[in-house]
Amino acid sequence: MQIAMVGDRIVPYEKLEPIYLDRAFYFGDGVYEVLRSYNGRIFALEDHLKRFSNSLAAIGIKTVDIDDVRNRVLEAFGKAGIAEARIYFHITRGSAPRTHTWTDNIKPNFFLTVTTLPDDSKAKAEGIAVSTFPDWRWKRCDIKSLNLLANVLARQDAAKKDCDEAILVDQNGLITEGAGSSFFAVLQETLQTAPLTSNILPSITRDYVLRAAKTIDMPVMEKPITPDQAKSADELFIAVTTKDIVPVVKFDDAAVADGKPGPHTRELIEQFRKYTQ
Amino acid sequence: MQIAMVGDRIVPYEKLEPIYLDRAFYFGDGVYEVLRSYNGRIFALEDHLKRFSNSLAAIGIKTVDIDDVRNRVLEAFGKAGIAEARIYFHITRGSAPRTHTWTDNIKPNFFLTVTTLPDDSKAKAEGIAVSTFPDWRWKRCDIKSLNLLANVLARQDAAKKDCDEAILVDQNGLITEGAGSSFFAVLQETLQTAPLTSNILPSITRDYVLRAAKTIDMPVMEKPITPDQAKSADELFIAVTTKDIVPVVKFDDAAVADGKPGPHTRELIEQFRKYTQ
Repeated sequence: MQIAMVGDRIVPYEKLEPIYLDRAFYFGDGVYEVLRSYNGRIFALEDHLKRFSNSLAAIGIKTVDIDDVRNRVLEAFGKAGIAEARIYFHITRGSAPRTHTWTDNIKPNFFLTVTTLPDDSKAKAEGIAVSTFPDWRWKRCDIKSLNLLANVLARQDAAKKDCDEAILVDQNGLITEGAGSSFFAVLQETLQTAPLTSNILPSITRDYVLRAAKTIDMPVMEKPITPDQAKSADELFIAVTTKDIVPVVKFDDAAVADGKPGPHTRELIEQFRKYTQ
Repeated sequence: MQIAMVGDRIVPYEKLEPIYLDRAFYFGDGVYEVLRSYNGRIFALEDHLKRFSNSLAAIGIKTVDIDDVRNRVLEAFGKAGIAEARIYFHITRGSAPRTHTWTDNIKPNFFLTVTTLPDDSKAKAEGIAVSTFPDWRWKRCDIKSLNLLANVLARQDAAKKDCDEAILVDQNGLITEGAGSSFFAVLQETLQTAPLTSNILPSITRDYVLRAAKTIDMPVMEKPITPDQAKSADELFIAVTTKDIVPVVKFDDAAVADGKPGPHTRELIEQFRKYTQ
């Protein structure tokens, strides 16, 4: 008799709840998005849906109607009634007995949460510390997939060092991005960040940061930097959906400039605020 | 009110079943093993438990008692009563609201299935076709983790080409291993396979193959080969727990030698059989 064991509970394999056959469970076979709202309004919903659509296509999940996803997001956000909300959702390829390949009739599984965003005003005002970690991620970081163990291990290493983010360094000694954020430096009045390749998530917040830089006439260079360059940068910051721009004031134990959020970062935060109001 | 949505069902976030907060779902944050039995006896159980223990340690899951895992495997296998069984089990870091970092009090989740192995006698007798795919996996393939999307995409590509396995090729043009198997070539009477690095799973079947080669006085070289070398090899085969040795008779549309399983492969299969009886 085919059986399964959940914890120490034995069940006939055929009676296993579908959730235990979700391919996210076995393979991380799904893609996700994180959105936030500012004062009751979801920010950049269409940008996120577009990227989600790209992620789905990249892993060959073809039967999802993005209008349906949008409706579910709006319905859940409306029901939750949280002004500063974090909206997480994922779609997995579906539930099936464990085998790497899939068949066309598999039905994707949708999951979403709307939760309250923690207050980030202190981090924004005072800046955060970050530490470096090897970039162990797979070679398709342009896909926002559920394969995030490398990010998890990096972030946990950072937490152990009392840092709020891990900055990932590839095998060529170049910074790709943060474990859960984009990474920016200000060097000689120029804003610098790694260019979009298959090793980088096409971050929506990154897009808005670059747009903000253009608006305030700040030169931009899309070229990766090294940890040494980061340590001697004039300013550093990360960008992430849930917090937009957060100054980095400490990099691997070295204070960044005078150890306080810099003027360009503050100007970009100010400009970004205009997009979210 | 914080809420979740499972499919189109809205539930209060606090009422969400713990399984939906399993970190395997969000991050693939867990490790697994696959065992098989031959004629009612589990093969190489201690080797698998040792590797599982290494995987757990590598991702920082510290509270698992391996004796307890062994007991569950034996209990489930005994209850199932399947002579030729496939035993899959994983442990995830546990269930918690989604955040990359974890706390020490999180309780790991155990999951196991015992299912009937499909008959592989045809593949063993006639050999299989394989196709190449880029090795997109992360940089810690020595950890048997639930981050398997790269393997899934590779295997699906192979299936589309009517192949049974994808052979992964790294950015230097060298074969690492199969999407779910080790890869071996026989070149000028020498058995060749990639050496164990952080890009390769320390396959237990691979170990037994190397042991079998020594027993029959076959020279072994641990050095990766290119797809071109594979195409012109005298013999090719894959090795995987569920099927042990399976001859490869077609590589990216090219017949391997005369397109039939070779004598060295057959001799190794014969020797391997002695370990499993």
